Amino acid sequence: MSKVISVEMERLLATGSTLRAMFEEGKKMRKEFGDENVYDFSLGNPSVPAPTEFNDALKEVIDTTDSMMLHGYMSNAGYEISREAIANDLNERFGTSFRMENVTMTVGAANALVVSMKILINPGDEVIVFAPFFLEYRNYISDFGGVTVVVPPNPPTFMPDMEQFAAAITEKTRAVIIDNPNNPTGVVYDEATICAMANVMEEAEQKYGHPIFLLSDEPYREIVYDQVEVPFLTKYYKNTLVCYSYSKSMSLPGERIGYLLIPDEAEESERIIAASSIGVRVLGCVNAPSLQQLAIIKVLDKRTDIGEYEKNRKALMDAMDAAGFEYVKPQGTFYMFVKTPVEDDTEFVTKAKEDFHILCSSGAAFDCPGYVRFAYCVDYDMIRRATPHIKELGHAYGLN
Amino acid sequence: MSKVISVEMERLLATGSTLRAMFEEGKKMRKEFGDENVYDFSLGNPSVPAPTEFNDALKEVIDTTDSMMLHGYMSNAGYEISREAIANDLNERFGTSFRMENVTMTVGAANALVVSMKILINPGDEVIVFAPFFLEYRNYISDFGGVTVVVPPNPPTFMPDMEQFAAAITEKTRAVIIDNPNNPTGVVYDEATICAMANVMEEAEQKYGHPIFLLSDEPYREIVYDQVEVPFLTKYYKNTLVCYSYSKSMSLPGERIGYLLIPDEAEESERIIAASSIGVRVLGCVNAPSLQQLAIIKVLDKRTDIGEYEKNRKALMDAMDAAGFEYVKPQGTFYMFVKTPVEDDTEFVTKAKEDFHILCSSGAAFDCPGYVRFAYCVDYDMIRRATPHIKELGHAYGLN
Repeated sequence: MSKVISVEMERLLATGSTLRAMFEEGKKMRKEFGDENVYDFSLGNPSVPAPTEFNDALKEVIDTTDSMMLHGYMSNAGYEISREAIANDLNERFGTSFRMENVTMTVGAANALVVSMKILINPGDEVIVFAPFFLEYRNYISDFGGVTVVVPPNPPTFMPDMEQFAAAITEKTRAVIIDNPNNPTGVVYDEATICAMANVMEEAEQKYGHPIFLLSDEPYREIVYDQVEVPFLTKYYKNTLVCYSYSKSMSLPGERIGYLLIPDEAEESERIIAASSIGVRVLGCVNAPSLQQLAIIKVLDKRTDIGEYEKNRKALMDAMDAAGFEYVKPQGTFYMFVKTPVEDDTEFVTKAKEDFHILCSSGAAFDCPGYVRFAYCVDYDMIRRATPHIKELGHAYGLN
Repeated sequence: MSKVISVEMERLLATGSTLRAMFEEGKKMRKEFGDENVYDFSLGNPSVPAPTEFNDALKEVIDTTDSMMLHGYMSNAGYEISREAIANDLNERFGTSFRMENVTMTVGAANALVVSMKILINPGDEVIVFAPFFLEYRNYISDFGGVTVVVPPNPPTFMPDMEQFAAAITEKTRAVIIDNPNNPTGVVYDEATICAMANVMEEAEQKYGHPIFLLSDEPYREIVYDQVEVPFLTKYYKNTLVCYSYSKSMSLPGERIGYLLIPDEAEESERIIAASSIGVRVLGCVNAPSLQQLAIIKVLDKRTDIGEYEKNRKALMDAMDAAGFEYVKPQGTFYMFVKTPVEDDTEFVTKAKEDFHILCSSGAAFDCPGYVRFAYCVDYDMIRRATPHIKELGHAYGLN
């Protein structure tokens, strides 16, 4: 045991971040081979700028707000005007009836998830996730001694399998995390799936005599294609907490602005609401960044240009079709989940990188070997340049 | 046991925040009696605006930075240009030789402290604090199962007593937290005190065979009076981590921008540096707000107008002197720690509030009964208006 580093941090140091490693690798390769000759599909960093109206809003807020209000402390839950504007925006869009009190401003969706863990989890409690999933969930869960229980992947649709889901729930299950639309598959859980999940969870709540919370991680809610509907989960299951971020819909991932939505229907909702501002405080965030709280509410009807991602999606699907790869057609997000022609996806990732300068993420990094994730939040021209090389990669595996 | 809320969060819900309660009370009283007739010294919210150059810097950064850089993800440790600028600024001011790598950008000093806990603390490990202290430290320590060990107050100087400090250290001690200048006493630990503390800690490190980290919480570093020197702790004790925030020196508490400084001299410093960006990530902050990271480095030589606080300090000392109160003369911060003429400081707080509309914080809220904290980050005119009432309060206790 280290004399300096805690046991939990030792584990994290040993694990590292596969995605981060790939990012560093990409930087190195671009230096060696030139920007034009590396095709980096590894990182989920939005490639379309924030709406110009957002920067205008920032400047307007800076120019017109008293310094104490602009940069000062407020309630740990956030500015009342921000919470109210967001509640109203949700009500208009989804026909809900949230009040200011239901919204706690957070340092992005990740912070909302960690705060939820702090509220709900005792050491040894279980939280269910569905593979493939964003691996940071494991770390959020283990921050407070929770145990991650993984429901195995269900290809080729990647909709959760209800029997496997039901089997994963135990006496110790306190929460279930989903992200819809899903990173890394790009699928959207439809209404029928959500209803089936709600049924499974309600039965389990009855059986075990305590609530099981559905944590809905929704940074990709607005990044959807072909008019697909993303069900608003508080309507389907009362013990739902929504973790939202403007990182993707507004291309503001670095600004760390989002919220935790706690509906009145949730069991002990008033105490969860009180606990959420305590959570933001005692985790050392204190509050979501003040300037961002004030600026975001001026542009709640604005989005980054999702058409750009749609164009990229089309180009990447064309490239994959021409190469002969099997993949899940993305209904949302800016990710495509591609089946590897060999079982060992890390071998495939290495070959793609070394022989064709194509960077993608191993499915194993999402607890789903046999697949790779292509992030198409990239320059369109890069996809066009990569297209022949993707074909060659397919050819190397006899796919074309 | 609640079926919803975790045991740790139940404890936090039950405790509440005395300071927050006082804030709500103040709002209510102002409504009832009028703004002019309530003298609220309860909250540590900076009352002097951020330097105008900071708002100019924000707008310049917004206008001149590409959206991907301005609002995008960067390394979890922060922008390299920000980390480098801060390292250079420290080197110029304190004759140190930090590199970019020694600086991890955080969501304020509180986040830096919580990240430090995540790095250093196993459940059951002990962290020492000196009463009176900012009670949130308890919560940061218990986030990961650490145990707070309190060294009793040492009035009237409130310098740590070395014998009591030495006696508090055990085999399980992993860290010691100080804030210098101190909230709530306003005292500054001088060089002799710091050297004595370093000696005690080095001896204990020898005895127990593992490092004991000194966590220096420094949001008030620049808020000092009469040219008092605040020792830069990495020079005195090698296992020091500095938790800094621009909240007070730049009046930006809502923006959540600060850093964790990890000197090369610290044991396993490279692994602590790696662990610090993991900590920022897995606690769900991901990174310090990007716009703030870019703006702050344009104004590292700027400060809020500390002269305003100095003027307030003088006015409040005059009021206390006229009233006959004993207090610790503040060398820094914007707090004054006043001895209550009765043992029960909560009784005093209630009397001050109910009979004289004077709001101050109970010393018990800082683990130091028998004292109260007056925050003088307030409107100067309020202090002038409060002066006769402070005198009446003293008179009620036979002090004048």
